[in-house]
Amino acid sequence: MKSECQTALLAGERIDDLQTKGYRIIQNRKLYCFGADAVLLSSYAKLKPDERCLDLGSGTGVIPILMCAKNEDNTFRAHKDADCFSKTKSEGGGTKNIREGLRFIGLEIQEELAEMSRRSIILNGLEKEIEIVTGDIITATETFGNQAFDVITVNPPYMLAGHGIYCKNPSYDIAKHEIKVKLDDILRESAKLLKQGGRFYMVHRPYRLPEIFSKMVCFGIEPKRMRLVQSYADSPPTMVLIEGRNGGNRRLSVEPALILYEEQGVYTKEALTFYGDN
Amino acid sequence: MKSECQTALLAGERIDDLQTKGYRIIQNRKLYCFGADAVLLSSYAKLKPDERCLDLGSGTGVIPILMCAKNEDNTFRAHKDADCFSKTKSEGGGTKNIREGLRFIGLEIQEELAEMSRRSIILNGLEKEIEIVTGDIITATETFGNQAFDVITVNPPYMLAGHGIYCKNPSYDIAKHEIKVKLDDILRESAKLLKQGGRFYMVHRPYRLPEIFSKMVCFGIEPKRMRLVQSYADSPPTMVLIEGRNGGNRRLSVEPALILYEEQGVYTKEALTFYGDN
Repeated sequence: MKSECQTALLAGERIDDLQTKGYRIIQNRKLYCFGADAVLLSSYAKLKPDERCLDLGSGTGVIPILMCAKNEDNTFRAHKDADCFSKTKSEGGGTKNIREGLRFIGLEIQEELAEMSRRSIILNGLEKEIEIVTGDIITATETFGNQAFDVITVNPPYMLAGHGIYCKNPSYDIAKHEIKVKLDDILRESAKLLKQGGRFYMVHRPYRLPEIFSKMVCFGIEPKRMRLVQSYADSPPTMVLIEGRNGGNRRLSVEPALILYEEQGVYTKEALTFYGDN
Repeated sequence: MKSECQTALLAGERIDDLQTKGYRIIQNRKLYCFGADAVLLSSYAKLKPDERCLDLGSGTGVIPILMCAKNEDNTFRAHKDADCFSKTKSEGGGTKNIREGLRFIGLEIQEELAEMSRRSIILNGLEKEIEIVTGDIITATETFGNQAFDVITVNPPYMLAGHGIYCKNPSYDIAKHEIKVKLDDILRESAKLLKQGGRFYMVHRPYRLPEIFSKMVCFGIEPKRMRLVQSYADSPPTMVLIEGRNGGNRRLSVEPALILYEEQGVYTKEALTFYGDN
C-alpha cells in the first residue's frame, strides 16, 4: 500500500527502516532523533476504528507513522476509500479544519522537524492518514478546538528546564527539557482537546510519577493504566507508560514491568512484540 | 534479651512465631490478624539509631515488634541502658508525655487489639521499646503533639468505605475499609506528627496510586521511594511500598518490583530477606 516514490533528502538526512511492515522514516542527526520510548508508546497506545489521534510534539513523526503501521488492519480499512480530503469544521469550533477521514495529526513546534516528517509521510504513502501541523502545544486548543480528538499521544521533554545537562543543540534541548512546554501545558491542553472519555497516552520518567499523577488528577485526566519499563528483570525502571482517561473514574491498573532484555543484546519475547508489528 | 515470662491468653487467642529472632505475637482469629503487607512494610521501613517511630493503626502490634527485631542491633543498644522511664514533654506541646528512650509507639483505635498487643510486647520483653496507645488517628496530633516523630509507619485500610465486600466482623471491616479513618486523615496527621524531613512508610494497593501520590504531594509528604510487590515475575503487582519525606524535594526512586515466589510455594531469595531477619 505504501508509496515507492523517492523523496529528496537534505544534507545530513538518512532513511531508517522502522522494522515494521516496511515503513521507513527520515532522520537527521543534527536534529532530534527518536528513541525506544517513542516506539514503545506507539505500541502501548491503542486505537479503535474511527478514532482520531493527536500526537503532541511529534518530532520526526515516528509515533503517528508507527501507529499507522500497527493499526493498519483495524483502523484505516473503513477510511481508505472515504473522501479523505473533504473539509469539515472541527466540532469544538477550532480555527483549523481537520480533514474528514484523517486519523492522525502530529503537532510539532520545530519547523525543520515538521517539514522532514511531512516527507517521511509521503515516503510511506500516508498522506491520507497523517498530517503534520507546525505549532505550539501551549495553544493547541486554539488550533484544533475543544474535544476534537479521541486519543492523544505524547513523548514529552522529561527534564525540567534548567535541570540535567544541555547538549547545546537546540533541537535536542527542546525535545529533552521543558523549555518550550511544561507538563502542566500538556495536561491542560490535552484535557480540553480530548473528548469526554478520550484516552491520553504518555511515556515519561518514573522519577516524576508523583508529579505526573498529581497533575493528571488535577486536570481531570485520570490515570487508568501504568506500565514500568526496565532493561533487565533486576534493574530499576527507566521509563513509564501511562494511559489516562479524560473525566475517568479512579482506579489504576498496574501491569507487571515490561522487561526489555533477557541478557545484553537479547530482547525478551515481549519486547519484540512492542518493537515489532504488534 | 526477650522475656520468657508467660502471658495469659484469652479465649480464641494463640501465640504465633514471627520467624524472626524468636519473636512471637498473640493473635485472635475473632479480631483482625496481620498479613504479609505488614511484614513487608516492617522490612521496607528503615530506622536509624536514636529515631522515634509511630505506627498508625497498629492492630496486633506486629509492625513495631518486627521493627524492634529487625533493628535490634543498630537502634536500641544506645538506649537499653538509658533512663527509659523519665517523663519528658514532647517538643510540640502535645498532651501525652512520651517516655525518653521509647522507640516505638503504636496507635490503635480498637481497645481489644490494643490490649492484646500490649501483652505481645510483654511476651517479647519489649516494654522499654514499645508502647501501645489506644486512640484515634484523626486526632493523633492532639495526642502526641507536632513534630514528635522521625518516622511513621502505616498499613491502612485499603478500601474506600462502601466499596468491596464487608465481612460483618467489625474488627476486620475497620482494618480493611476506610470506616474510621481515610487516607486524607492519615496524611494530614502524619504531616503534622513528623519532624521536618521525617520519613513516612506506607503499604497500600497499586490501584490507588494516583490518589496516594496526589494527596501525599498535597499534604507536603513527597514520595521518595516506591516498590511494587507481586506474587510472580509475570503477575500484576498487588501491593506497593512507599517511602515519603515530610517537606522533601521532588524525585521518586522506583525500584524493580519485589517478586515473592519463584513458583507456587517457593519464595524468592529476596522475599526471604523481607520475611526473615533482614
